[in-house]
Parts: sequence; C-alpha cells; structure tokens
Amino acid sequence: MSVEDAIAEISTFLGQRITRSKSDLDLHGRSESHFPPAPPDAVAYPETTEEVARIVKACATAGCPVVGWGTGTSLEGQAQAFQGGICVDFSRMDRVLDIHQEDMDATVQPGVTREALNRELRATGLFFPVDPGANASIGGMASTRASGTTAVRYGTMRDNVLGLEVVTASGEVIRTGTRARKSSSGYDLTGLFVGAEGTLGLITELTLRLHGQPEAVSSAVCGFDTVEAAVQAVIATIQMGIPMARIELMDPDSVAAVNAHAGMTLPERPHLLLEFHGSETGVAEQAETFGMIAAEHGGTGFDWATRAEDRTALWTMRHNAYHAILASRPGARAVVTDICVPISKLAEAIEATRADLRAHDVPGPILGHVGDGNFHAILLFDEADSDAVTRAKAVSDRMVERALALGGTATGEHGIGIGKLGYMEREHGAAWGVMGALKQAMDPQGIMNPGKLVPPRN
Amino acid sequence: MSVEDAIAEISTFLGQRITRSKSDLDLHGRSESHFPPAPPDAVAYPETTEEVARIVKACATAGCPVVGWGTGTSLEGQAQAFQGGICVDFSRMDRVLDIHQEDMDATVQPGVTREALNRELRATGLFFPVDPGANASIGGMASTRASGTTAVRYGTMRDNVLGLEVVTASGEVIRTGTRARKSSSGYDLTGLFVGAEGTLGLITELTLRLHGQPEAVSSAVCGFDTVEAAVQAVIATIQMGIPMARIELMDPDSVAAVNAHAGMTLPERPHLLLEFHGSETGVAEQAETFGMIAAEHGGTGFDWATRAEDRTALWTMRHNAYHAILASRPGARAVVTDICVPISKLAEAIEATRADLRAHDVPGPILGHVGDGNFHAILLFDEADSDAVTRAKAVSDRMVERALALGGTATGEHGIGIGKLGYMEREHGAAWGVMGALKQAMDPQGIMNPGKLVPPRN
Repeated sequence: MSVEDAIAEISTFLGQRITRSKSDLDLHGRSESHFPPAPPDAVAYPETTEEVARIVKACATAGCPVVGWGTGTSLEGQAQAFQGGICVDFSRMDRVLDIHQEDMDATVQPGVTREALNRELRATGLFFPVDPGANASIGGMASTRASGTTAVRYGTMRDNVLGLEVVTASGEVIRTGTRARKSSSGYDLTGLFVGAEGTLGLITELTLRLHGQPEAVSSAVCGFDTVEAAVQAVIATIQMGIPMARIELMDPDSVAAVNAHAGMTLPERPHLLLEFHGSETGVAEQAETFGMIAAEHGGTGFDWATRAEDRTALWTMRHNAYHAILASRPGARAVVTDICVPISKLAEAIEATRADLRAHDVPGPILGHVGDGNFHAILLFDEADSDAVTRAKAVSDRMVERALALGGTATGEHGIGIGKLGYMEREHGAAWGVMGALKQAMDPQGIMNPGKLVPPRN
Repeated sequence: MSVEDAIAEISTFLGQRITRSKSDLDLHGRSESHFPPAPPDAVAYPETTEEVARIVKACATAGCPVVGWGTGTSLEGQAQAFQGGICVDFSRMDRVLDIHQEDMDATVQPGVTREALNRELRATGLFFPVDPGANASIGGMASTRASGTTAVRYGTMRDNVLGLEVVTASGEVIRTGTRARKSSSGYDLTGLFVGAEGTLGLITELTLRLHGQPEAVSSAVCGFDTVEAAVQAVIATIQMGIPMARIELMDPDSVAAVNAHAGMTLPERPHLLLEFHGSETGVAEQAETFGMIAAEHGGTGFDWATRAEDRTALWTMRHNAYHAILASRPGARAVVTDICVPISKLAEAIEATRADLRAHDVPGPILGHVGDGNFHAILLFDEADSDAVTRAKAVSDRMVERALALGGTATGEHGIGIGKLGYMEREHGAAWGVMGALKQAMDPQGIMNPGKLVPPRN
C-alpha cells in the first residue's frame, strides 16, 4: 500500500475535492517562517466529519501521513508535509454550528477563522477573545495551543476550549468534554488534543467558551526608561489584581520599526501597550491605578485612546509589527522566537537577549506578551548570508537555553512543529518519553503529522 | 511476587514508616460517603520523592496496587483500596517548598492542605483560591480536579496547577510544565495527571498559580421565588461580566436544614449566596449592579455582609451545609450527587430533580455552584432501609441521565472513583476507550489505583 492507494481511495468519495495540482501542493507546502517548502502528495478538502474519518481510514490502511491544515499561519512548520502524504485542508468546514447565548458557548467547525467567528458573534454581545494576531483557523489555534495579546486576561486556547470532536488515527470519531463549564469526569482528553498539533488526531468540531463583550474599553501607550522598569510596572499591576485585557511590551528596536512602517512617532524607548476592559467606572479606575503604578516606575508619555478608531490603530500597529520589522530590512527572512519565563525573570531574559543580539550582530527587535512572561525576538537574516543564518539560529538556541534555565519554556504559544523539536528533551527530560508513549498508544502507525512534537520513531 | 514481598522491600527503607496496624488500615479504608470500608494491606508514609519512587518500584516488581492518600475526603471512593495493596499517605510530605511572590506561584508538596497553604501565604498578599469545602490536601485536590465555591471566578484545579512532579507507574520521576504562565511545548501532561485520580502516577510536587488577595470583599444573601428566577439572575449577572467570586444556590430544603443547624432564620425559599472581590469601588459597583439584576428577577431580602465576621459566618454556614443536612435526619447516610450542566439548563435540571425526589419520597436538599451549572443533591437514606437506599441510588442515576441529556457531565468536581464508573461509557462513548488506551500505555501492569476511572482490564 502507498500514498497512491490512499489518494485513489479518497478520490472515490471526495471526487474533485482531492487535488494534486501544483498550485495547491505549493500553497500547502509553504511556511510563514523560515522553513523550506514541504508539499504534501495531495490536498483533500472534506466537508463533513464523516469525510475526514474516511480520509484518515484510507491513510491508515495505506500507512500514509495525514497533516491537518487551517490557514497555514503556524510558525514552526506544524502544517508542512515533511514526509509527504495527505494534507487535510479544513477551509470547507468553516461553519459556526451553534451559539448558546445564555451559556456563553459556541460550537464551530475547525476551519472557521477567529475573525469570521467574531463577526458572527457581534450581535450576541459575546466574543471569542483568543487573538494570536494572524487570522488563524480555530482548529489550528487549538492544535498549536495558541494565545496572543489577550491571554493575560482571558487565557489561551487551553482555557477556552470546552470540548472537541476528534477523528483519531484509526478513523474513529470521538467526543471529548461537554458543554458544562467544568467536569471531573475522567482524563482531560480535550486538554490532550489541544496543543497536540494534529499528532494524535484531527479536530473536526470545537465547543468554545465565549466571553461578554466589555461595556467599556480603553487603551493606552506608555514609555519607560528601561525594560526592567516596564516589567516592574507590569508585575505591580498584576499583583494589584488589575484585570488587564492586554499588556504588551515593545523594545526600542520594535518601536523604531513600527514608527517607520506605520508613520508613528513614538520615542524609541521601551513601551507598554495596554487595554482595559470593564464597566465605564471600572475601566477608568483601572486606568487611574495603572497610571499611578507607571509613574512610580518612571513611565512617561502615558497616552490614552478611548476612541474606537484610535484603539484600532494601536492594535493594528501591534499586529502588524512583525511585518513592520520584516520591512525594516528589505529582503530579510526571520527566525521568530517565542520563549516564556516566570515574569520576575522577564527583564533579565530580555536584556540578556538584547546583549546577545548586539554581541553577535543579529538584528532582532523584541515584542512581548509581557503579562504572561512571553516574548518574541524577530531574528532577521539575509538568506544568502549563511553566516548570518547561523548566527541568528545560535541566538535563538541561547534564548531557549536561557528560558529553560530561568524556569521557563521554549515556546509560549507557537508550539513545537519541527522548529522546536530539538529542545523537547532538554525541556521535558523523561516526560518527553511519556509523550512518545502516549503517541504510540494513540497512533501506533505514526501516520498523524509525523516528524513533529514527539520523539522520532526507532 | 506478592504484596507481602512489596511490604518487606519497602520496610527496608521506610522502617517504621510502613505500617499494618489495624487502626491505620481502618482509617485508610474508610470513605466520607456511602462506600463500604476497603482497607489497604499496608500504609506507607514517605517523606521524599525518592521514597515514593522506591515504593512504586517495589509495587511494580510485586505487581501490587498503589493507592494515593491525601486527607481521605474524596467522595467517590478514590482513595479506598478496593483491591488492597499499598496506601501511600502523603501527610509527611506537606511542606510549602517555595513561594515566588513576584511570579504569583508556589511549589508545594502534595500533602499540604489548602488551609495550611493559605496560612503560609497570608503575609504575602497572595492566596490559593480553590476551595472544595473540605480541608483537603493539594495533591488530592489536583488528583480529583477539585473546584468548589470560587471556581466561577478563579477556575478549578485544572486552571491553577502550572506544573507537577510525578512518579510514574514504573517508578520513574518526571516533571511536567514549568513556572511559565503558559506553554505550547508538547502534550499537556500536567492537565493529564490533574483529574487522573492517581491512576497514571503519584503526584509528588505541584507548582500552583496564586492570586492576589482582593483589596475589598463583600458578601450577600438574596432570596428568590423560584429556582428558575435565581438562575436567571445568575445568567444575567455573568453575561454582564460581573466577576463574581462566589455565587451559590441553596434550595428551600437546604435553607431549612441550615436554619435548624446553624440557628439561622432565612426564609425557606431558594437563596443565592454571593461574594464579590475587587477594589473598594469595584466591589460596591458589582454589588449595586447585582442588586438591580436581582430585583428585576424578584430577588428580595438582599442582605449585605461587609464585615469579615459576618462573611465568615455566611461561608461557614455554606461549608457546613452538608453536615447540617446530614444532621437533619439523625442516623442517615447520604449519596452525594454532583452533576454539572450548561447553565441555561440548570433550573430545568434542578426542578426535575426536585420533582423526582418528591415522587420517590427521597429527602434530598440541593446546593449548587450555580455560576458553573454544578449542583449537589444530598440524597439521605437510613442504611437499614434497603428500599430507601435503592430509591436514593435510582434518583442519583436519573440525575446523571438528565445531566448527560442536557449536554452536561456526571461529575462537576467530585470525580469518578468507583462511584461514577458506571456512567463513564454513557458520558464518553468511544472516548472512554481512548482513556483506557492511555492508561494501558502509562501503567501496563495496572497497579496505579486499580478499579477506578478507566475501563476494567480484560
């Protein structure tokens, strides 16, 4: 049996919805970051769970790889077909199936994007808060355990998925969790599939926790003399119990890139970008308290944006920062790092990274979800300059080593894919072997997104 | 090899700290609820992770069961040794190892109780919020995925454990998670062990998320004409985004029992018990908003308790409600049910339960963590009256069936143990088989808390 057999079998029920066109294969072999193209052998576009189950069964019979695809915005090669096989593109499974307004939950198909979901929710007074920046699919976001700017208040995908429907490696359809807010009923399979990057099964339906749209929202920007001062202000803010909706750090290099790209005129110093959600008086009180804390830590230029359009401009700038940074060196590519440390170690981790960047002449603006201790350095290099590539990757390695030494993790939100595979043993030790044992139990043939996340098969 | 061999081996390094005294065996065979005694063959009192690992290795060699023990307050027989073996009592591993004030986390041994932990935290301005009522051990609370009155605001044990040290079934020591607030690094093993009831390994250390002690706290009691009206008030409150710290329901029978036991004089109607946490103005605003919502739903007798001693009296009454209810029928025992449903179905589930209780002449006061859709009926019976036992258990069965039909779960916070084992297949379908496969992969001999949670071995 071979991948050809699987494709032939799948064609019998998908018809034209499995394709080997070059453009489709190229599109589904690409990466948002620095990984080389790795196209699948074919791309399937199922429309139902039953079709997904039949695809996986065909692949199980043929012993051929199955790789899920949402929008292709993952950053560690999670959706690329490094061993070929069938790419299962969920773009035709993009419906919001049910919204339960009183229960504040929604059941969706994996292909719906977070922006499309929030458009459908607009009239309900509810929203889905997880916001990784990219307009990713909800299934992909669950699979990489995505988070982003709002996790400090609303949590990550781990916290916002109540239940799943999953096609396992044998093609069986299972359901995990319920619509109840909590449960002590058995192993947390929902939590096991969230963040599994499609290595244990394909998610075909998700029940999500929704949140009430805040009555009032306000945003602010505030400059600091040092990263340390900004981080201390954040620690004090969180300890005071101020329920920050967003609290983001940009280092001077990020500020410079954003200024150039978006025509902003922020001083080139460390900045915090903030958002408050609550009642009118609650937001005003939060802002006032934060203002006092910031002033104690030397914060200046505290600038409010209560108008919706100013807020939109602010967060559009933040979301476009990656592109602004790339644009700051035309033709450059980037290694996007993603370490997360205990917040008390954040200033140390950032300053050590900045020193390392300077010492090795690697341009690397830094952006951080500072309330969670998570930050990204965008390590820029010219692909033709092999020494620059090597230096950028070496900085990335040292960032991870530093994160682990400080009690943190190699990835706060981007996941493992192939990009972080080399750090798994260092981070998890013997627990990585336990992950391998779970993979072996649930996917004994190793067909689900092979080569990612777990130890290589012997 | 036999359990005798394991005991002999363990004695070589624990000395007097493994015992077969009748009082010790009796104590560790008992249950807080209606299960018959099931003593282990011996009770071990390890003081270090290394000793736990050696105990488990001895049991693995002998093929003998290992059952963890915290304070014995679980309600579904989780800590009872139905197949004998070694009970591992964690009471000598009860230290708070580290408190990281800036990071708002603490690392503790599993035997520390939640009250002892909060006493140690008092001076730090932080607290650990999960409160199941009983003064349970943190390891036990993690193992049963406990929650309680504050979960509506602060989450359950699933949400408040950042990382673990675990002794696996082979006696290997692994670490899961880190001190970082979030991670996308591989399978969520922390989440897998939390709620696994000791069937996959023994937790020997936990890193917990702490929260800031609120600046202001106020509590309130409010009566309603019907359970439906009370639930609608709760739904409106949550949809408004009011961050309730506690929101508890007592039905008229619970109110009557509490009145009799604690000398209270609440009208015998459905009541909500509430607590607000925040800043002074925030708490006042929350209370005012809730007051308006309650009034819209016919709430009356809205009574505030801003003084600490009044609040203590209120929550002591709530925590003692189980004993008040037991005391309302001298000599009675109880089946304690624990269903959890989407909140929009809560009034329906409670009213159907009350009708069922009346129809079958089963006394069953109802208490609920209403913000989560979770409630308990305390089904009272006289042990000598076998028909009453049968009727109580039948009501419990129908409650679970109703919960599952309404999109809920058989247990919101008490767990499975042996008490809920019979519902697992109905609730999880094929996913229960996946749980069995995970168990098989991680504990192929089936020595870890056998007979609980997963499908029986063939």
